[in-house]
Amino acid sequence: MDELARMDAMAQADLVRRGEATPLELVDAAIARIEKTNPSLNAVILPAFERAREEAAALGEEARRGARRPFLGVPFLMKDIGGQEAGAPCHMGMKCLKRAGWIEPQSSWFAEKIRAAGFVSLGRTNTPELALLPTTEPEAYGPTANPWNVAHGAGGSSGGAASAVAAGMVPAAHASDGGGSIRIPAAHCGLVGLKPTRGRNSFGPFAGERWSGFSAEHVVSRTVRDTAAILDVVAGRMPGDPYAAAPPARPFREEVGTDPGRLRIGALFGSPREGVAVDPDCAEAARIAARTLESLGHRVEEAAPAAYADTNVGRAYVTAVACNIARTLDAVGEKLGRALEPDDVENTTWAVAQLGRAASAPAYLAMVEWWHRFGRRMAEWWESGFDLLLTPTAAEPPPPLGQFTSPPDMPLKAYLRAAPFGAFTFPINMTGQPAISLPLHWTSSGLPVGAMLVAGYGREDLLLQVAAQLEAAHAWRDRRPPVHA
Amino acid sequence: MDELARMDAMAQADLVRRGEATPLELVDAAIARIEKTNPSLNAVILPAFERAREEAAALGEEARRGARRPFLGVPFLMKDIGGQEAGAPCHMGMKCLKRAGWIEPQSSWFAEKIRAAGFVSLGRTNTPELALLPTTEPEAYGPTANPWNVAHGAGGSSGGAASAVAAGMVPAAHASDGGGSIRIPAAHCGLVGLKPTRGRNSFGPFAGERWSGFSAEHVVSRTVRDTAAILDVVAGRMPGDPYAAAPPARPFREEVGTDPGRLRIGALFGSPREGVAVDPDCAEAARIAARTLESLGHRVEEAAPAAYADTNVGRAYVTAVACNIARTLDAVGEKLGRALEPDDVENTTWAVAQLGRAASAPAYLAMVEWWHRFGRRMAEWWESGFDLLLTPTAAEPPPPLGQFTSPPDMPLKAYLRAAPFGAFTFPINMTGQPAISLPLHWTSSGLPVGAMLVAGYGREDLLLQVAAQLEAAHAWRDRRPPVHA
Repeated sequence: MDELARMDAMAQADLVRRGEATPLELVDAAIARIEKTNPSLNAVILPAFERAREEAAALGEEARRGARRPFLGVPFLMKDIGGQEAGAPCHMGMKCLKRAGWIEPQSSWFAEKIRAAGFVSLGRTNTPELALLPTTEPEAYGPTANPWNVAHGAGGSSGGAASAVAAGMVPAAHASDGGGSIRIPAAHCGLVGLKPTRGRNSFGPFAGERWSGFSAEHVVSRTVRDTAAILDVVAGRMPGDPYAAAPPARPFREEVGTDPGRLRIGALFGSPREGVAVDPDCAEAARIAARTLESLGHRVEEAAPAAYADTNVGRAYVTAVACNIARTLDAVGEKLGRALEPDDVENTTWAVAQLGRAASAPAYLAMVEWWHRFGRRMAEWWESGFDLLLTPTAAEPPPPLGQFTSPPDMPLKAYLRAAPFGAFTFPINMTGQPAISLPLHWTSSGLPVGAMLVAGYGREDLLLQVAAQLEAAHAWRDRRPPVHA
Repeated sequence: MDELARMDAMAQADLVRRGEATPLELVDAAIARIEKTNPSLNAVILPAFERAREEAAALGEEARRGARRPFLGVPFLMKDIGGQEAGAPCHMGMKCLKRAGWIEPQSSWFAEKIRAAGFVSLGRTNTPELALLPTTEPEAYGPTANPWNVAHGAGGSSGGAASAVAAGMVPAAHASDGGGSIRIPAAHCGLVGLKPTRGRNSFGPFAGERWSGFSAEHVVSRTVRDTAAILDVVAGRMPGDPYAAAPPARPFREEVGTDPGRLRIGALFGSPREGVAVDPDCAEAARIAARTLESLGHRVEEAAPAAYADTNVGRAYVTAVACNIARTLDAVGEKLGRALEPDDVENTTWAVAQLGRAASAPAYLAMVEWWHRFGRRMAEWWESGFDLLLTPTAAEPPPPLGQFTSPPDMPLKAYLRAAPFGAFTFPINMTGQPAISLPLHWTSSGLPVGAMLVAGYGREDLLLQVAAQLEAAHAWRDRRPPVHA
């Protein structure tokens, strides 16, 4: 069953559909792969193997009765922030929730939709505390390593998910992105990472939005078709959502293989704005994408929205995140029945929350106005005739582990270290546009580097069409990391 | 041309289309009607007759060349908050902007779409300062009277618009609703008032949302078909909108006359929650609607969402509005190049802003979470099988003018007086659902009273279908107020 480690979710589902494997066989094989690779990666922090085997056995019964769930019996993992599963922990990388042994009373709709599609959750993956950093090294659960080089990080905040999928533990895993947290770990681990349009996937029943609408949930996967087909499963307005993306004209999976026609693509290989230096390997990833896109007949020009270079964008972003982190500490305190204290969280988290506590509500609303205007300015570029923006996903390749710590006298140091990793991604969280990271380059030392494509609001269709073209031209699926099941 | 005062916008557009009237004739007749009725109403505070006549003359040329704009030459009015017109004032009922003679440099997209449809703006209508109250009695521009009884108010905040349309000055006028500000004046003046779904009509290019997403722009009109056909003209996502309602399956005007089938309608005739007393005439408006709906074959039950009765909803609403008012005072200060002082605004406005200034950003975000959960709880009721909620629009009929003042020692008194008027409407702003007020009852003293129908998110289609049924059963168009052109 070693072959399974290289099969994507659709291929594994086909095995069950054709009766060539049972859900329990798929799940047992995935458990074996996790047991083999996870000790050197620390991607899966909260395994739920027994529950998974029970679910798989039940799904096996269903399969025998001819049930037709799209991903029946396919192994999956949930990130340990969002994606709550009733009766399972959800610690969000937090020291205090781990200490308290917090168990969620209710499932998120995302988790329910994943389950209804036939996926079997094998447990929960590592995340930095409150998803704050582009690396996954929480004090609570320790660092997650990159399967391509275990001395390096897997990115963040969906680093556990990306490490697990890259190592072949599962074909795809739940992830979320409030500043780059799907795209960055996808880039660092050689995966496909789509951040969907704002309002595409519901945060219910718990939240109406996360991080002021910046955050979006989806998956990291090895193939574009998995990212598309899983989006069909999880997308769609749910009751009480405060707003929602308009439904697609047809299923997203049908975009894979559809000719997008000849597109006009603006490309940015250098610095997105003052103060950000771009590593040559990261620029190269975008150049490789540009050359391939040209060879496919697209028109690629060096161009990007003027607003993208606005140096004020970082301040607005950090203010919003800090206010949300402060609110989250209060909300976690409400869960635990006591106000949190500095020792309950990492010192970086506490320092960011203090920034947010210092903001007044009118100052926060001024920032909301700022990023809504920023969204207009960004949109102008798409209105001016461009279909897609191409950039590196991050400004640096996967960093060595251990760089993201804050000494007591510099509690924001780790957060400042994050800047080059999110520099290309976070403005797209503010606008709510969809964006995808694709693994198009490897450094000379064998570390993956991603390129990002950004589409206009609601245009996942276009991203998936073009991503599938790039996938057909680049054999990233054939590359395997040193740590692999 | 006296007949024009009773014709709706579609009928006036038909006249131009058939060559039976020119745009200039329509506009001149509307100017004459405004000059005749406005002195006793004070609905139009910033006339722009010369500009209107020039535009009408130009549209007349277009009409002769066979142009096909849907409302070519039809007279219209803009509310003096939102709906900015380049080169015209926009004072938002504010003392300080009136004193400064503020002129807007840029048009709103709503105003541009109205203009592109062929409407001719004859000027701007009165609003309470910053649309804060359900009556239109700003210190800056004085009180607007109700055409049905000039000793009474026209409601608010779109009171100028409703008074003008009820008096026959124009067939429909721009309005906006952040807590009931379309529905309440529509109810008080005997008009149709639809608050569209959140994100249906763009607030661009200035804002991404208003009042934290509570507010929506549209019109007050005399006929359901005008409300529907104008929605076709103004609806739709615009570039950079942070979120948008999904487009309708077909034009809204086609819903008028479409059979909705047999619906399940929950009706609430009494108090929506503790502390709110409902005037018998207001309950009667909803009972009339219920009886008519039953006679049309719908199933009407006394039922309402449990969450609707939550007494915490008011605190969350007021906190959000107060934070937004505080931010708006800051933003107006940025326009004027100086910080505002108490004398720049009404004492009620200043007191509400002070409430907002006292809130921290994390406390504001806690409130956002609260109303997002409230939206889920409200949605459960629709999910449980109800199609529409029927209530009175307001808990009191149109009040006498002069009741909404705050003495210096009780600066929130006017705002507290607002409670019974918005009690049914404001929770629907928090959820973002569409709702419509219809003029189904008149008090024994001849004042109009409205009933409100609320649909699930995005279901303007259903509201318009049912509103058209009620319109066909009730001859509200045949009633004319004492003050009428």
